[in-house]
Amino acid sequence: MSKLCFNIAMSLDGYVAGPDQSEENPIGVGGMRLHEWLFPLAVFRRIHGEDDEGGEVNASSGVVEGWFENVGAVIMGRNMYGPVRGPWGDDPWRGWWGEDPPFHAPVFVLTHHPREPLEMEGGTTFHFVTDGVEVALERARAAAGDRDVSLAGGASIARQYLAAGLVDEMELSVVPVLLGGGERLLDGIGAELKLEQLRAVEAPGVTHLKYRVAR
Amino acid sequence: MSKLCFNIAMSLDGYVAGPDQSEENPIGVGGMRLHEWLFPLAVFRRIHGEDDEGGEVNASSGVVEGWFENVGAVIMGRNMYGPVRGPWGDDPWRGWWGEDPPFHAPVFVLTHHPREPLEMEGGTTFHFVTDGVEVALERARAAAGDRDVSLAGGASIARQYLAAGLVDEMELSVVPVLLGGGERLLDGIGAELKLEQLRAVEAPGVTHLKYRVAR
Repeated sequence: MSKLCFNIAMSLDGYVAGPDQSEENPIGVGGMRLHEWLFPLAVFRRIHGEDDEGGEVNASSGVVEGWFENVGAVIMGRNMYGPVRGPWGDDPWRGWWGEDPPFHAPVFVLTHHPREPLEMEGGTTFHFVTDGVEVALERARAAAGDRDVSLAGGASIARQYLAAGLVDEMELSVVPVLLGGGERLLDGIGAELKLEQLRAVEAPGVTHLKYRVAR
Repeated sequence: MSKLCFNIAMSLDGYVAGPDQSEENPIGVGGMRLHEWLFPLAVFRRIHGEDDEGGEVNASSGVVEGWFENVGAVIMGRNMYGPVRGPWGDDPWRGWWGEDPPFHAPVFVLTHHPREPLEMEGGTTFHFVTDGVEVALERARAAAGDRDVSLAGGASIARQYLAAGLVDEMELSVVPVLLGGGERLLDGIGAELKLEQLRAVEAPGVTHLKYRVAR
């Protein structure tokens, strides 16, 4: 059956965003340090449409490629889609992701504001869901068919799905950084969530820890 | 030069002991789940003097053996040494560890109560240090010579050494468990501590993440 999966970078002290998050700096102070292992990778540059052929290949490459395999639909929170304040009228704001977003699949955006679907180039259509996380998952599963549903974030959405017991697999990319404050992924989830370790991949500047949620 | 090293088991949500710690249950509710990967190992049974030859060998075995290699002295907190209330008179309380403790080296116990050194079998002598973490480290380094100093815990002692910038290497054994509360190792350390990932070892039910503190 189709699985609900997500991946996120986490500091060794458990933060997925640094302190003092704001609209201008949603990742918080120091939060960009969580992703420094990712940016040099050839696979990252390719997914984000860089024209050049450069970039590194290391043990993280296959992990990152795996995140985009077998994905039939994507769920994301409102802040992952685009800025909170945009021109929502005749010239609707089209999100952070450009005309050809890297999803190439239906994307279900959790929001409080109903809106018509927005079809982009390359197979990405944004659907705006106002009925909560369970409805978004139902619609995403229906769109994904036999393929998986990828939870793109942000952290508060991932936490909601974890708390509701709806996540099947998660991969935490643990970086050797202490942020000392900010937003924690696993606060408030609690001991009732049972996890099974699937694998660990050591890579330069990061270790990827993958878990299955046991039922 | 002699390094100050420690290892500790940590839940995926960052706890090294569960909630509701007490004198009777210093590891807190659910805290024993942090160590379930350890108990079946042959190396653990051997170190703790079990007579039988049984036990498992897996990828954790070499990691655990490494914790006892090249150790010239040990530092521990008062609660690691023994119960808080013991018969301290003519028949002094001799700690949790039995007549032949598994350290086979000088052990420096941080305490507020001065006491004569206590020599046990097998090369372990407990020294009681009332002058704080830096003095304990100086004395342990002097005793260790070229060998390393192992910080045996508990968590609050490890946190004090981390916060003081005195730790050289640490290995966190991350278990696929959420405790949802308790004592966190890395709270209050903050972003100024710079870490370098040395290695990651995937093993059944745990991943061992080893870091060097960068100066």
